[in-house]
Amino acid sequence: MKKFINNPSLVVEESLAGYIACYPQYVRKLEGLRVLARKEKPKKPKVAIITGGGSGHKPAFIGYIGKGMVDGVAVGEVFAAPPGDWVYKATKELDMGMGTIYLYGNFSGDIMNFRLAKILAEAEGHKVEEVIAYDDIASAPKESIKKRRAIAGEVILWKIAGAAAETGMSLSEVKEISEQTAFNTRSMGVGTYPPIIPATGHPGFILEEDKMEIGVGHHGEPGIKKEKIKSADEVSSYLTERILEELAFKHEDETALLINGLGATPLQELYIVARKVCSILDSYKIKRVITYVGEYFTSLEMAGFSVTLTKLDDRLKKLILAEADSPCFKQFNLGGDYNGNKS
Amino acid sequence: MKKFINNPSLVVEESLAGYIACYPQYVRKLEGLRVLARKEKPKKPKVAIITGGGSGHKPAFIGYIGKGMVDGVAVGEVFAAPPGDWVYKATKELDMGMGTIYLYGNFSGDIMNFRLAKILAEAEGHKVEEVIAYDDIASAPKESIKKRRAIAGEVILWKIAGAAAETGMSLSEVKEISEQTAFNTRSMGVGTYPPIIPATGHPGFILEEDKMEIGVGHHGEPGIKKEKIKSADEVSSYLTERILEELAFKHEDETALLINGLGATPLQELYIVARKVCSILDSYKIKRVITYVGEYFTSLEMAGFSVTLTKLDDRLKKLILAEADSPCFKQFNLGGDYNGNKS
Repeated sequence: MKKFINNPSLVVEESLAGYIACYPQYVRKLEGLRVLARKEKPKKPKVAIITGGGSGHKPAFIGYIGKGMVDGVAVGEVFAAPPGDWVYKATKELDMGMGTIYLYGNFSGDIMNFRLAKILAEAEGHKVEEVIAYDDIASAPKESIKKRRAIAGEVILWKIAGAAAETGMSLSEVKEISEQTAFNTRSMGVGTYPPIIPATGHPGFILEEDKMEIGVGHHGEPGIKKEKIKSADEVSSYLTERILEELAFKHEDETALLINGLGATPLQELYIVARKVCSILDSYKIKRVITYVGEYFTSLEMAGFSVTLTKLDDRLKKLILAEADSPCFKQFNLGGDYNGNKS
Repeated sequence: MKKFINNPSLVVEESLAGYIACYPQYVRKLEGLRVLARKEKPKKPKVAIITGGGSGHKPAFIGYIGKGMVDGVAVGEVFAAPPGDWVYKATKELDMGMGTIYLYGNFSGDIMNFRLAKILAEAEGHKVEEVIAYDDIASAPKESIKKRRAIAGEVILWKIAGAAAETGMSLSEVKEISEQTAFNTRSMGVGTYPPIIPATGHPGFILEEDKMEIGVGHHGEPGIKKEKIKSADEVSSYLTERILEELAFKHEDETALLINGLGATPLQELYIVARKVCSILDSYKIKRVITYVGEYFTSLEMAGFSVTLTKLDDRLKKLILAEADSPCFKQFNLGGDYNGNKS
C-alpha cells in the first residue's frame, strides 16, 4: 500500500484537521465531536441542513459546507456511519429556530443513527425532518425504489435543497423540494479498480484485470454484472439509456447532468464519457440546464464513474442555478436569485 | 489497460468535444484548430492570455478558460506540445488590441512552438510577450533556476496574471506581474504510481511497489531520488522545507499554498498532507492568505502530489484574492476587486 498517511487509525482525524486548517473561513469544528459546521451564521435564520456518512468520499461530505449548500456534517470512519449522538448534538447547535432537515444516503448504518438523532432532538423540542437519497438504479428494481442505495446524486440533492433553504423557505417546503429532487434524480455507475482501505491496506473488492463492475456502489458494492471492459461510448450509452428508461423525459424537458469520477479515473476520460452522454441527451431533445463533470463524490482511489440525471421543473431549475459557495462546490448565480426570481 | 476511451488515437479530440459540450457558455473552439477560447468577449479590451501544452493534465489547461483566468488554450497530444501555428492563429484571433502574453511551462517543445508563434504574430504587428513557469525546484539547482521544469505552480501564475489582465493593466504591467509571480512560486512533488499513456496502454514510468519518486515531474520525469515510501508527515515536511529554503520567508510574510493531487491520490490524503504543511508554515509564522487543495494540474492517473508556495506582496495578494470564473476554477472575490481596491 502506497498511501500518504501517518497512522492508519488516525486517517480520518488528520484529514479533517488538515481540511479545517485549509478552510477556516468556511468551517468550524463542534467542540468534542467529529462534526463540522458552517463558520458564519447565515444573515437570516434558515432551515438547517445536516448530512453525514462514512469518510472516504471527499469532497463529499465536508467539502460542501457553506452558503447555498449544507450547514453541518457528521463524519464517520472510512465507509462507516457517524454516531447518532453527534448528529443529535449537531442538530441542537445548528437549529436556527426554523427546524433541521437531514439529507443523507440510503445505508442502514446512516438510517439507524440519523433516526436516533431525530428522536433525541425532537424530544427536546427541535423540529426535524429527513429525506433520504436513493438514486442508484442498479441497486434495486424500480418496484422497490426506496430500497436503492445512494450514489453521487446526493450532491444534486444538497445543491437544490441548500439553495431552497437559503431562500428562507419553511421546513415543510424544503422537505417537499428535497423529496421531489430525490425522486427526480437517478444515477448509475461503473467501477474498474477498487479503493484501498487505509486501515487494512487491502482493496475494497476484487475485479479481474480486464473486467468492470456495472452498477457498482460507491463503497464498491456489487452492481448488476461484471463484464469485459467496453468502449467509453458503449458504457456511457448503457448507463444513460438505463436512467432514461426510468425518468420518462419528453422533448424539451430539462435536466441537470452530473458525471462523477470515483477517484482515480482521469478527467480526460470523464469528458469522453460526457461527449457521449450529451449527444444522447441531445438526440432525445432533452435540454441540459447545467452540467457538472468531476470528482464530486469519490470512493478513495476507486476507478470508474457514474452518470446522474435530475429532471428539473422551473422551481428546481432556479434552485440548481442559484449561487453556492463552499470549499469544494462554488457556483456563481446562473439565472435565479435565492427568491427564485430571474436575475 | 482499463480506460474509458474509444479509439486511443482520438482520446484528445473526443475529450475536447465532451468538454465543449459541457461548458458551451464558457468556451468556443477556433475553427479548424485544436484551440479553445473564452466564449464571451470581456466587456473592456484587455491583454489576452494564451497558454497551452500537452494533454493529460486536466483540469489544466482548458479548465481555466474564463473571467480572471486565461483567454485561449492550444491543446497538444498527450504530453506533447501544441503546434506553433495554432498558437499563432489563436493570437491573431484573441488579440484585443492590448497585446497578448503567453504563459506556459518550461518544456522544450512548448518553448519552440510558442516562440515560433510569437515570431509569426509579431511579423503581422501583434504585440506578444511571454513568461515561462519554472517552479519545480527538484528539476535543477537554484543556480540554474531558469532550467527548471514547471509543475502545478503554473496554476498560480494563471490566476494572478489572469486577475491582472482583467483589471485592464497594460501588457508590460501584466508581464512584470507574471515574472514576479513565476519567480516567487516554488513547487516540489512526489509520485508513487505512474500514469497509463492512452496511446500505448503502458505506464509512463516504472517504480517498485514500495517506492516513491521524490521530485517527480508532471509527465513522470525522474526527480532527485527514489526511496521507500515514508509517512505523510515526513514527505510533506521534506518538500515544504526544501521550498522554504529557497523562498526566504520572514515572520508575517504572506503566501499562497497549493497542494496539488496528480490524479489518483485521494483528497483524504491531500488533506493529511495539508495538515502538516499548514502546521510548518504556522511554526515559521508565515501567513497563508489562501489555500488550494485538489487536482489542479494532473498527470492522467498518476498518484502523488506536489506542494507549491507563492510568496505574496500586497499587489499579488489582491490579485490572487480576486474573482475568477472558469469551468474548473471558480472563486468569489475574497477581498480585492479587479482594480486592486479593498472591497
